[in-house]
Amino acid sequence: MISPLDLTHSNYIQQKMDMKTKPKGSLGKLEALAKQLVLIYAQGIGERSLSSMQFAIKEPSISVFAGDHGIAKEGVSIAPSEVTGQMVANFASGGAAICVLARQLGWHLNVVDCGILTPVPMSNVVDSRLGTITAPFHQRCAMSLAQVEAGFVSAKRLVESDIQRGSNLFAFGEMGIGNTTSAAAIFSAMSGLPPSQTVGQGTGVCQEVVDKKQRLVEQALAKHKLDSTKPEEVLLSVGGFEIVHIVGAILAAAEAKKPVVIDGYIATAAAILAIAMEPHCKQYMIFAHCSNEQGHRKMLDYLEVEPLLHLDMRLGEGSGAALALPIIQSSLAIYNEMASFSDAQVTQVVK
Amino acid sequence: MISPLDLTHSNYIQQKMDMKTKPKGSLGKLEALAKQLVLIYAQGIGERSLSSMQFAIKEPSISVFAGDHGIAKEGVSIAPSEVTGQMVANFASGGAAICVLARQLGWHLNVVDCGILTPVPMSNVVDSRLGTITAPFHQRCAMSLAQVEAGFVSAKRLVESDIQRGSNLFAFGEMGIGNTTSAAAIFSAMSGLPPSQTVGQGTGVCQEVVDKKQRLVEQALAKHKLDSTKPEEVLLSVGGFEIVHIVGAILAAAEAKKPVVIDGYIATAAAILAIAMEPHCKQYMIFAHCSNEQGHRKMLDYLEVEPLLHLDMRLGEGSGAALALPIIQSSLAIYNEMASFSDAQVTQVVK
Repeated sequence: MISPLDLTHSNYIQQKMDMKTKPKGSLGKLEALAKQLVLIYAQGIGERSLSSMQFAIKEPSISVFAGDHGIAKEGVSIAPSEVTGQMVANFASGGAAICVLARQLGWHLNVVDCGILTPVPMSNVVDSRLGTITAPFHQRCAMSLAQVEAGFVSAKRLVESDIQRGSNLFAFGEMGIGNTTSAAAIFSAMSGLPPSQTVGQGTGVCQEVVDKKQRLVEQALAKHKLDSTKPEEVLLSVGGFEIVHIVGAILAAAEAKKPVVIDGYIATAAAILAIAMEPHCKQYMIFAHCSNEQGHRKMLDYLEVEPLLHLDMRLGEGSGAALALPIIQSSLAIYNEMASFSDAQVTQVVK
Repeated sequence: MISPLDLTHSNYIQQKMDMKTKPKGSLGKLEALAKQLVLIYAQGIGERSLSSMQFAIKEPSISVFAGDHGIAKEGVSIAPSEVTGQMVANFASGGAAICVLARQLGWHLNVVDCGILTPVPMSNVVDSRLGTITAPFHQRCAMSLAQVEAGFVSAKRLVESDIQRGSNLFAFGEMGIGNTTSAAAIFSAMSGLPPSQTVGQGTGVCQEVVDKKQRLVEQALAKHKLDSTKPEEVLLSVGGFEIVHIVGAILAAAEAKKPVVIDGYIATAAAILAIAMEPHCKQYMIFAHCSNEQGHRKMLDYLEVEPLLHLDMRLGEGSGAALALPIIQSSLAIYNEMASFSDAQVTQVVK
């Protein structure tokens, strides 16, 4: 059970931000972000201690979860399923976009095999395999309830081990050929939006393939008769091994009262499921960016959230989440370091 | 004279980006940014040398230019003109938002007095005073041509001195009570848009004051009969001392073939003037963010550019430009470090 965010210090934090040398609210989303982060980190701390405390992101952790999808055999991607494993090797070797961004921005990177066709024999790939590939979900359930539960346990262990290392901020990315089709099915099942509004181009397929993806999602929805009040069932019916891990990791991080940076289309599908399971986990989420995958904007609207970045990206891997880290750090630096009107002897004009 | 950006290496850079392990174009604006920066930095370099070169932002420099505005006496801001000087002291003492962001993100910060009511006696404030305050521009020209020219010389000297220190990226912010009114007048004069579309809330004034700002801008436009083909005249008629410095600094940086990060409403008004004077300087501009000042979106549309960040900020000081630095650095890291399909032995699927 994830309990609601403790809002005890809400007024204190707002007043502290409002006394800083700037027009009220003029730092926009940075102010809202600082407030959210300090509320999260200051839970259980008395106001007296709070007034002298500074807050910082420590050992930020980003995990890339990889899984293969049975639905990929229907030809829903520009690439074959083998590319999932090849990219896992690329993550482990440090050559992928997320590796470059993690190094540059200071994220600790975990690469996790959640179930791909051929395991990658590299020591820095975490083994969390729930199988080899999911079942094609337009024909039958992608996986069993036991696999979902095993994925949750494993994701939680990973988050806990990072917390042991000192991590106080999490982000989760993914790799899995076919997984935009899975995310679209999840989003349609949860929102009631028809596949024509949730299915997009993924890695960049042509309209013919988009149409095929839509038909497969329609078939899956007709077959499984999913109910948005049963998110676990949606997950096992049309999800993926990497998506199971993201849902589990979000829940584990929020349970441990740590903020979670939500990446793009796939990660947001996982966030929608996590929120349906544990509504309060939404208070721990920071939405990093709006991707160019057409359904992502609709997901963000469905959740009534505004992301930080609009960079027209559609890569996955957690790349959008990774890029949000400096903005998150800036918001805390503003909270910690910026002078107040009285500190700086600047005339405060109250509107 | 600013010569057009040399596009010799355009195909080489595009191909290099397209061979990296990601769907083509999937890093969105990061790819366009990397291409722009490498084009700028690789001018005059042969393709042979280019293939082994890495690119990095060095000693990024942000200058905050401050100036007082005669128009402020009409009551167009929530704050009196004295606040300009108080904020200059705050910049020099390290307590303002831009100081916090510059420290956190690694910008070298210059604080420049371009002409404020009372000089701030602090050794780290650069003296570039063009006067005490501009004339109220609804009644007469804000300044003389000689003041504009002196500001350009001084801004160029500042940019050149930073280049001597090794800076290869510039950003320019501002402080000046009353300067959103000046920026709105500039934008209306250059775009032909009526003041009702260019004037906004600035620091957060009420509708009555917005109406007054509009009337003042209308009066100024009627009085000066400005012509968008004569940007110097627009600048001296309705500009500000800090805006003169931004225009001059943009031109100097572009002339020295260095990229310039453009901040919010005031800085974009200056960018519009700089482009009107020297159209090729636009190729050196990176638009950092879309501010919440209502006319800023319209300025970006007028220039047909898309900014990187949408953080609902409306502070000025260069704060939006400052926040864009990590994204700029990430784009170069992607260019430098990310593996190609052949490096990583990942199957490349050509669409």
